[in-house]
Amino acid sequence: MLEEHIKLPDGRRVDDFYTIRLRDFVVVAALTDEGKLVTVEHYRHGSRSVTQGLPSGFIDEGESPVAAARRELREEAGYEASEWSDLGRYVVDGNRGCGTEHVFLARGARRVGDPVHVDLAATTVHLVALERAVESMWYGDMRELACVAALALAVIRINADTVSAGRA
Amino acid sequence: MLEEHIKLPDGRRVDDFYTIRLRDFVVVAALTDEGKLVTVEHYRHGSRSVTQGLPSGFIDEGESPVAAARRELREEAGYEASEWSDLGRYVVDGNRGCGTEHVFLARGARRVGDPVHVDLAATTVHLVALERAVESMWYGDMRELACVAALALAVIRINADTVSAGRA
Repeated sequence: MLEEHIKLPDGRRVDDFYTIRLRDFVVVAALTDEGKLVTVEHYRHGSRSVTQGLPSGFIDEGESPVAAARRELREEAGYEASEWSDLGRYVVDGNRGCGTEHVFLARGARRVGDPVHVDLAATTVHLVALERAVESMWYGDMRELACVAALALAVIRINADTVSAGRA
Repeated sequence: MLEEHIKLPDGRRVDDFYTIRLRDFVVVAALTDEGKLVTVEHYRHGSRSVTQGLPSGFIDEGESPVAAARRELREEAGYEASEWSDLGRYVVDGNRGCGTEHVFLARGARRVGDPVHVDLAATTVHLVALERAVESMWYGDMRELACVAALALAVIRINADTVSAGRA
């Protein structure tokens, strides 16, 4: 078991088993007009493995969440999207009150160029049918909570919009 | 901005802005036979506020995830449930490869007693219509990523089961 002892700038000490992600970040569930989800493979050093995820990243200082979402979709996947929906902001650890995920649904996604590899690890971009992506949540290809939450929220929003459209 | 400098037992140093939740934990989306979701109010010291969430907690050493889920539902809410579905395990921070949320859907939930307040803060238990709980994800009453993810996954699973039942 890994134990961490941390001293915060205000003098408080944390002698506990876990601490938290502190910078705000965005995760983007981007869909093409054909209903395909834009996924990216990330290499994760902790697990020494490649995991399937969604375009995501930290929000730069002074950057709006949606601007960060557009930038990450462009940089990580090489995609732009015509329609953006804010699916909310969620704190990673409510006990400490910091570290927030901003979730976006982007529709009308289309490839506009190559990914820009600003991270150390190159990513591979895939288009995955939404139903297949949902299966990959249950069966473990997509394992990261932040990405799974964004995908699940996007699916619920898309289904709600479909029901609304059917009623109209 | 909070900066942390951590030395791990193997000698590695982490000079970064964030670290992670390390102990595995469970979150339970429990539904009564009337389709009401069992929610609990948590006081969170970080934000000095009360947030709406789901029964959740750390897995004790040697305890199975589902046993922890049953225990937390009983302790935090005073409920038991007849049908348990494993909705997967998701890593909070894939970069470090540790800290996993285990999500469970519990159906046939019924009140069997008072909550057991093992935490410092007392919790208040509410029964909320599932549709209302989904709205509370979009409109901010439920703000914690771990709970929102569990609720969203439960909604998708319930909808999928309903579609399957309709086909049968």
